[in-house]
Amino acid sequence: MTHTIREKQKLLARVRRLRGQVEAVERALEGEAGCEQVMHLIAGARGALAGLMAEVVEDHVRTHLVDSETHPGALNTEAVEHLLDVVRTYLK
Amino acid sequence: MTHTIREKQKLLARVRRLRGQVEAVERALEGEAGCEQVMHLIAGARGALAGLMAEVVEDHVRTHLVDSETHPGALNTEAVEHLLDVVRTYLK
Amino acid sequence: MTHTIREKQKLLARVRRLRGQVEAVERALEGEAGCEQVMHLIAGARGALAGLMAEVVEDHVRTHLVDSETHPGALNTEAVEHLLDVVRTYLK
Amino acid sequence: MTHTIREKQKLLARVRRLRGQVEAVERALEGEAGCEQVMHLIAGARGALAGLMAEVVEDHVRTHLVDSETHPGALNTEAVEHLLDVVRTYLK
Repeated sequence: MTHTIREKQKLLARVRRLRGQVEAVERALEGEAGCEQVMHLIAGARGALAGLMAEVVEDHVRTHLVDSETHPGALNTEAVEHLLDVVRTYLK
Repeated sequence: MTHTIREKQKLLARVRRLRGQVEAVERALEGEAGCEQVMHLIAGARGALAGLMAEVVEDHVRTHLVDSETHPGALNTEAVEHLLDVVRTYLK
Repeated sequence: MTHTIREKQKLLARVRRLRGQVEAVERALEGEAGCEQVMHLIAGARGALAGLMAEVVEDHVRTHLVDSETHPGALNTEAVEHLLDVVRTYLK
Repeated sequence: MTHTIREKQKLLARVRRLRGQVEAVERALEGEAGCEQVMHLIAGARGALAGLMAEVVEDHVRTHLVDSETHPGALNTEAVEHLLDVVRTYLK
């Protein structure tokens, strides 16, 4: 991820929270929690994973589709927003 | 869709096939078909709809993110392929 | 769908609304509407299709998993609710 | 999860593999791996998470919707298979 330090920290915070949620699923299974609790925890982890993917995709689109040094201003920001709206809809 | 005539025909063929699939769901419901058949038809329509969205997103990315007349060569085709791989994975 | 008349009417209303949404996508493509409008319409149709599937699955679970005439009271309604919660989460 | 020991071991193996995949995403982000690698790893984790959910849902349906001690034979196994087909389609 050749992104800014700030973006990297944000993504790392997300993936660590996700790891915590997966560990909670593991503990629930080990502790023989009810199915409904396990399904609820997995659904939460799924939301976190989708949010992480949406953010990585967004960074990828904004950072890598056009090299802003050699082609400044080439990326159509309105078209990018329409694309990211669709991505977020599908990654919910 | 400011795309080529050829792309437009391809998308129209897809959406008409999808309409046929939705009409088949309607007929199945009217004819009191079994649940499993209705669920099967809906799953098929869902696949067709996802394929249509994937194609429109692909066209959008290739055509609108960068104006190829004012910024020729600005779109990083490798980065586009990585993005579209993700889109296709989520739209399956 | 061996369900009540009332459920059938509800499902038919849903599938007809969905057909209208798919026809709107077709008209948008024919009329060369902008990509963002086409993507928006497809996303709407996807939501409608998911809602239809969720309702058919719900009917299927409530009606067909257990024959209520030969096994009255056998279906655990709380476990059914937990299942349908998951189904709805994934069909959003 | 009031399931058999064997099922529990299978689910635990799945969730531990998933944890390993999430940790790989974390290491990739820490090591500033390319976006495409990070997206690929996240897509893999998503598949693993969906497979885990599908298996928990399947266990839930088979084990909890009907109490097989008080209502032996009440669960319509064919209707269950149709339901699980849909669940697997959506959890892919």
